[in-house]
Amino acid sequence: MTKPRSEQAAPASRRAVLRAGLASGAAALAAPALAASGERGNPANLPPNVPAWTRTPGEGVAARAYGRPAKHENHVGRRDVPWLAPSPQSSVSFTPLHALDGIITPNGLCFERHHAGIAEVEPADYRLLLHGLVERPLVFTLDDLKRMPRINRVYFCECAANSGMEWRGAQLDGCQYTHGMLHCVMYTGVPLKLLLDEAGLRPQAKWLLLEGGDAAAMTRSLPLAKALEDTLIAYRMNGEMLYPENGYPVRVVVPGWEGSLWIKWLRRIEVGDQPWHSREETSKYTDLMADGRARRFTFVMDAKSVITSPSPQAPIHHKSGFTVLSGLAWSGRGRIARVDVSLDGGRNWQRARLDGPVWDKAVARFYYEFDWDGSEMLLQSRAMDETGYVQPSKQELRRLRGANSVYHNNGIQTWLVHPTGEVENVEVS
Amino acid sequence: MTKPRSEQAAPASRRAVLRAGLASGAAALAAPALAASGERGNPANLPPNVPAWTRTPGEGVAARAYGRPAKHENHVGRRDVPWLAPSPQSSVSFTPLHALDGIITPNGLCFERHHAGIAEVEPADYRLLLHGLVERPLVFTLDDLKRMPRINRVYFCECAANSGMEWRGAQLDGCQYTHGMLHCVMYTGVPLKLLLDEAGLRPQAKWLLLEGGDAAAMTRSLPLAKALEDTLIAYRMNGEMLYPENGYPVRVVVPGWEGSLWIKWLRRIEVGDQPWHSREETSKYTDLMADGRARRFTFVMDAKSVITSPSPQAPIHHKSGFTVLSGLAWSGRGRIARVDVSLDGGRNWQRARLDGPVWDKAVARFYYEFDWDGSEMLLQSRAMDETGYVQPSKQELRRLRGANSVYHNNGIQTWLVHPTGEVENVEVS
Repeated sequence: MTKPRSEQAAPASRRAVLRAGLASGAAALAAPALAASGERGNPANLPPNVPAWTRTPGEGVAARAYGRPAKHENHVGRRDVPWLAPSPQSSVSFTPLHALDGIITPNGLCFERHHAGIAEVEPADYRLLLHGLVERPLVFTLDDLKRMPRINRVYFCECAANSGMEWRGAQLDGCQYTHGMLHCVMYTGVPLKLLLDEAGLRPQAKWLLLEGGDAAAMTRSLPLAKALEDTLIAYRMNGEMLYPENGYPVRVVVPGWEGSLWIKWLRRIEVGDQPWHSREETSKYTDLMADGRARRFTFVMDAKSVITSPSPQAPIHHKSGFTVLSGLAWSGRGRIARVDVSLDGGRNWQRARLDGPVWDKAVARFYYEFDWDGSEMLLQSRAMDETGYVQPSKQELRRLRGANSVYHNNGIQTWLVHPTGEVENVEVS
Repeated sequence: MTKPRSEQAAPASRRAVLRAGLASGAAALAAPALAASGERGNPANLPPNVPAWTRTPGEGVAARAYGRPAKHENHVGRRDVPWLAPSPQSSVSFTPLHALDGIITPNGLCFERHHAGIAEVEPADYRLLLHGLVERPLVFTLDDLKRMPRINRVYFCECAANSGMEWRGAQLDGCQYTHGMLHCVMYTGVPLKLLLDEAGLRPQAKWLLLEGGDAAAMTRSLPLAKALEDTLIAYRMNGEMLYPENGYPVRVVVPGWEGSLWIKWLRRIEVGDQPWHSREETSKYTDLMADGRARRFTFVMDAKSVITSPSPQAPIHHKSGFTVLSGLAWSGRGRIARVDVSLDGGRNWQRARLDGPVWDKAVARFYYEFDWDGSEMLLQSRAMDETGYVQPSKQELRRLRGANSVYHNNGIQTWLVHPTGEVENVEVS
């Protein structure tokens, strides 16, 4: 791991900025009152301003076999937009990106997108059928899958419709809603290639059908090459079994490709010689162009980024001074190579600091630290991936694809920061 | 990322083993009954054997703003050993290592060790005092800390007493209890160096006192060099705010060093010129040697490993055939370089496959796939880190340090696998 910039000697100017910023925040201590309470471990001797949690022992261990966040963090949750879909069973709940940091999404906060609600599968009755153009059809139980060799990989999962409401202009007020159909966890699963090797592919095999066990029987076609390359039949996220809303007990992981291919509650894989043209790849998940024709099988999620703080749900609370801007960048084509940040709506760009692990087809965390003068800003971020692809503006996307589309909007997002610190979703022309 | 072994062409022998194993598991399909139910998305046409979760739409999105595991996974939880400590407020709950995979521990399953229960800190009233041999003492609010530059790192946290009950022989029945005072998450925090730079160290500064805000006012001394090297003042784990039992809102992260230094509910840092000799580094957290003298300030957690499956709580359910052995390895001195596995109590060793990211001072996941003949096995794993250090046997440890100690037992663990698949904690001589 490379040495983080903040652990290296900071240039004098930056250190001065930091100090200036903190002077308005952390208080220099005239009278070290707390330090006077030196008789640790002796509550009877503690002065009256010692808080309750130091005076009395708290709750013991294992009162909660499975822990949960502090009650003060109850505002951090997945949220839906009730008018977005006809029913909660065919709707979306969004990851609270504005309230998170790093690159791992906790399982309890991973966005949901269902087509017929959450299938509550009995693991003992779970079966996965693998058939079609194979030498011998197979049925796997959950125990069978758990007995197979497995690997662990951190990948992002993004719905093709993420940011879809923003195609025609700024609409939703916060990165949770504009970009929150995104999560990033460590998956544990069996390479799909191993299952296909077991069954034995016939020479004509070119496509796979993936079918969910939910009441929508969600189905998508997957090219065989991708199945053999890096697709996983996953049963764990962040170490523990998948949560019900994310496909318990088994889902498909198709690294870098649109989320609707990551079939949840997977019950069937059929091997064929052409795509199936299912509802979810004809009526939906196609990109309607200006001329009325639709792009189809646009699987890859291209490089994209968003500033998570400041953002409409994470305004600035100080008047001016040292400010940390942070966000996420990701690409379905590989690693993020670089992220640039603009404070003036794209006229000037500065290079952001990528922090922590930067993996293939995972989100990367970026920071940009600067001295805010308290005036209005137009914040933007622009991701570049290792293939050299640069995240486009929304205008560029519309020029190429028109304004009919919903899917695959990876355009640059703009936040307007008011002098009050409040932040708004806007578009710049 | 290197290509996982299981995605490379498997040697013929291994593939044959795999096929042989699955023949007793996944069923070859004579009559593809499920495949006949081809009329997807039309519940009325589904044959009677289609399960309930496919017949009827399930619960919709955002019914749970914060998700939780499937009810079938309720057995996966932290557990305590009631006789281990005089009260739950000064006890331990253990991470269920046997029920997890990969390297990330979900926040809700991270072990606890408290000295006076869980301090329920009000974040608005949280204060961190930094004083002593500094140019200017400072008090930080939580908002002050959140305004500072931050980094994200995955580290393991291990209690010095992990495996302590095993010093004198095999005692606890499962890796949750023998090795479960261990977790590994992605922390977000401010490098402690930045706070010390703000305050300005005086020339005599050599040690820090770290003090918790719990009713035990848990205190430990930390050498300045470690504070400047990589110690973090952390407020997030796996992206979200720390859970109460792990120090909400602020704890110290001391990478690779024993957990009792990772002070939770941190309220005070004092800079001094020598260690404080607090209760937790004199009466406790010292290593009592055979001659009655105690090793002190033995901070580093040396290289260690454990097989998590099979293990007493994760027995083998098949009679013989293809078997995946898996475990964790970690070192407080750097990266894990290699893990070897023995099936016969240490007479013969085979190299295990390290899977997924292998980081500095984080746990690494290893696998060893083999064809079990159904007879008794004595399973062991042995970690080596990048410094060349090799995990010792328990006998070697006792030869060097006697049998009085509780802390820093990083000896090799042995599991006896019976022909029934049941697994027992044993010692080999």
